Amino acid sequence: MYEERIRRTELSQKITSAENAALLFRDNMVVASSGFTKAGDSKAVLKALAARTPVPPRNITLITGASLGHNTDGALAAAQVLHKRMPFQVDPVLRQQINAGEVLFTDQHLGESAELIHEKILPRIDIAVIEALIIEEDGSIVPTTSVGNTATFAEAADKIIVEINMSVPLSVYGVHDIFRTGVWPDRQIIPITGADTRIGRRSIPVDPEKIVAVVLTTTTDSPAQINAPDEKTSAIAGHLLTFFSHEIQKGRLQRSLRPLQSGIGKVANAVMEGFLDGDFHHLTMYSEVIQDSAFNLIDAGKLDIASASSITVSQPCYERVFNNFERYKPHIILRPQDISNAAEVIRRLGVISINTAIECDIYGHVNSTHIGGTAMMNGIGGSNDFARNAYLSIFVTQSSSKANSISHIVPMASHVDNTEHDVDIIVTETGLADLRGLAPRERARLIISNCAHASYKDELNNYFTEACRSGGHTPHLLQEALSWHARFQQNGTMLKTVHE
Amino acid sequence: MYEERIRRTELSQKITSAENAALLFRDNMVVASSGFTKAGDSKAVLKALAARTPVPPRNITLITGASLGHNTDGALAAAQVLHKRMPFQVDPVLRQQINAGEVLFTDQHLGESAELIHEKILPRIDIAVIEALIIEEDGSIVPTTSVGNTATFAEAADKIIVEINMSVPLSVYGVHDIFRTGVWPDRQIIPITGADTRIGRRSIPVDPEKIVAVVLTTTTDSPAQINAPDEKTSAIAGHLLTFFSHEIQKGRLQRSLRPLQSGIGKVANAVMEGFLDGDFHHLTMYSEVIQDSAFNLIDAGKLDIASASSITVSQPCYERVFNNFERYKPHIILRPQDISNAAEVIRRLGVISINTAIECDIYGHVNSTHIGGTAMMNGIGGSNDFARNAYLSIFVTQSSSKANSISHIVPMASHVDNTEHDVDIIVTETGLADLRGLAPRERARLIISNCAHASYKDELNNYFTEACRSGGHTPHLLQEALSWHARFQQNGTMLKTVHE
Repeated sequence: MYEERIRRTELSQKITSAENAALLFRDNMVVASSGFTKAGDSKAVLKALAARTPVPPRNITLITGASLGHNTDGALAAAQVLHKRMPFQVDPVLRQQINAGEVLFTDQHLGESAELIHEKILPRIDIAVIEALIIEEDGSIVPTTSVGNTATFAEAADKIIVEINMSVPLSVYGVHDIFRTGVWPDRQIIPITGADTRIGRRSIPVDPEKIVAVVLTTTTDSPAQINAPDEKTSAIAGHLLTFFSHEIQKGRLQRSLRPLQSGIGKVANAVMEGFLDGDFHHLTMYSEVIQDSAFNLIDAGKLDIASASSITVSQPCYERVFNNFERYKPHIILRPQDISNAAEVIRRLGVISINTAIECDIYGHVNSTHIGGTAMMNGIGGSNDFARNAYLSIFVTQSSSKANSISHIVPMASHVDNTEHDVDIIVTETGLADLRGLAPRERARLIISNCAHASYKDELNNYFTEACRSGGHTPHLLQEALSWHARFQQNGTMLKTVHE
Repeated sequence: MYEERIRRTELSQKITSAENAALLFRDNMVVASSGFTKAGDSKAVLKALAARTPVPPRNITLITGASLGHNTDGALAAAQVLHKRMPFQVDPVLRQQINAGEVLFTDQHLGESAELIHEKILPRIDIAVIEALIIEEDGSIVPTTSVGNTATFAEAADKIIVEINMSVPLSVYGVHDIFRTGVWPDRQIIPITGADTRIGRRSIPVDPEKIVAVVLTTTTDSPAQINAPDEKTSAIAGHLLTFFSHEIQKGRLQRSLRPLQSGIGKVANAVMEGFLDGDFHHLTMYSEVIQDSAFNLIDAGKLDIASASSITVSQPCYERVFNNFERYKPHIILRPQDISNAAEVIRRLGVISINTAIECDIYGHVNSTHIGGTAMMNGIGGSNDFARNAYLSIFVTQSSSKANSISHIVPMASHVDNTEHDVDIIVTETGLADLRGLAPRERARLIISNCAHASYKDELNNYFTEACRSGGHTPHLLQEALSWHARFQQNGTMLKTVHE
């Protein structure tokens, strides 16, 4: 039944197998793929590329929207296909190669990643692989569960391979809002004034001459792993919901709050689920990813609209949503990631941004990417697109982890992705620190007091007190500032031993 | 002749001395003042406040646009008036108190500093002191040489003291473009589509009932100290101009470039002066501050329009400009700092942003604020407002200074204000590193090779090589990463001695 999805009929002649399509790739190519937080990614062609015999092509630069599912990044990495990867990844095999220096990784703000392409900073894209719901008569492509950078790739690539995903119901048509800002010096205003503003078209313009192959697939997106809230995540959510209630009492917020952005992860999920019980109404989301919690809030009548660049949900939620998509469609808008993450819109709407930190330091700098200051975890993603321009920039983390051997509140962040200037609120299970308007010394007292784990509090206070003796606007002891991380490397714990 | 400047005639009855006006202040007040990079600041009332006998009020929170001139911050600090200061300062006496922990300093993005006020995060402003060219019949205020946060202060303050500056020629009327975005949840689009777009009114709306005193002054702005280009700054400018020429050859830029933003300082000045000779035409500026170089470019017919929040120039330039203002006015627009520094506009226009770094690390993180990681210099100012959203984010610094005892390229920045994700180009007198699209290990090789001083190159290469042995996406040796700064503290130089 692919005929109803390939409406430019001559393109049916381009239908081929993923294996044949994979033969189009050569060494040293720049390749782009649809896919954003594992949604709407290439399911067949990139996998076939990794499996190509006798040897797959080498030295490929791979650009996506954000992360791919189905271990595709891992398969490509294991087959030694990749030279460079951007702008985001979450794959353990690829991560290992990045940290070994075997694959170069350009860790970019997701909202800006299209610019290197349309400004011709990168070499031309040779082939783009795009998952599609429909190819329209004019050749334009209706995406599936994400938009990501696909509109940019479709415009910039020399050749396009389309994967028609027969498993995504046609009822998804109409959920996308494809708007292009244009390129400098003629960029347009993005006329979004509410999370629900529709400004674009339903499909991505494509020159049909560029479509060199069409592959039919039936594989659904990789399901998101949703961890149930636990004691810590529930405590974090509780602190935040109490904070919002207080802000409403002070007249700073209304019960509809402002458009919410929530990163991926169990804490963010717990916070969003928390809105089910609280006295909040007519909530909206202006975010990157729509997760299970958003659909639960829609079902509960709490969330009016969710705007993002992808739908990334668990298996049960996927079935519920895509078997009843007409019911959810009025509440959902999927946009290109340079629109979902646009500074202009985030600031205009006054987004409340909630993201996960790897660690925070006592002055409010946030490390979002690097374990121990050196090893890449996933990438900055959209966290700073939102944090930098949000009305409220909130970072959540546990106070400590791994049997208390790691404190996530440290004297000095071992890597900084979100600076003190952009971090309004830090929350751990022990409490919340509202840093707005505070000087560094005020922040340090509040963060240590409210957010640090009890077993690290004395050491943090000692560090701060000693550093204050040396003076400075941001007191530090440079020879000790990163000693907690060094101690963890040596001893397997940040806790001081009795002998030290 | 104040009558032609106080057009709401009843306010003439409020004319009083600065000393009398200073009696209106009480302990613990929140005070706001006009003034942005020393332009359009309070010349009389704040100074009289510092000099008030027997003792001036204590525990004052002082909020401005940016820095004040006439050593006003120093006088207030010396008189122990200040409890907290925001969002920027450049005063040596105040700086010393900030670094001693005696005055709290909230170092904020200049484009965001109004938000703490209109969102009621800060306590209400008790008194705002505003320098004015004219008070209109409706009570609205025409500012002088800066706009800064004055529109926000005028709206939010309980009481307003106006300083009518009789020395600023009336021909300045019409240069201001006062536009308010409104407050959340009803913020408006900022409809600027070119540096020359005018969107607002000529004066700042003021409830005349709030004006409690009018003081007449004749003092001009503190002149900017402009250092003539020297060998190093000329070399930096030369590298940048060559880079722009190459970008034009590659078809990425036109000869008009894109709207320029330039920070304060002799390097930025040298770069802007460099455009006098190059083959660039119809340049525009969308910046914070209009400095001498902009007027030289206007005179040379190179610069069509300069949009900013203040005019801050040397004494000779001040006389030239303000004695012939009708000639320059068509080329000048002064805007509120939340418009001059708005993420929305900076990104839409594709600004080319040039700011000074205190230090850069080998991976491209930039420290804009802290000497040795602890001591505040001036503040982040607008550097990240521009760098974060610019088309091109350029940071300039010398490779080394103080008889080569300080390397401005270091293994790890001792404080991060502009992260690796926001830094496109680093330039020192030794060369330029174009970091766009590069992974950290690629950046390190380029920065060390092109931007480090010869006498630090080997040590940087050794650090990088050794760190790569330990691995990681961003290789670091945590116990050595800040050792250069620690060594400078101990030995007075970052250079390794023979014994080490």
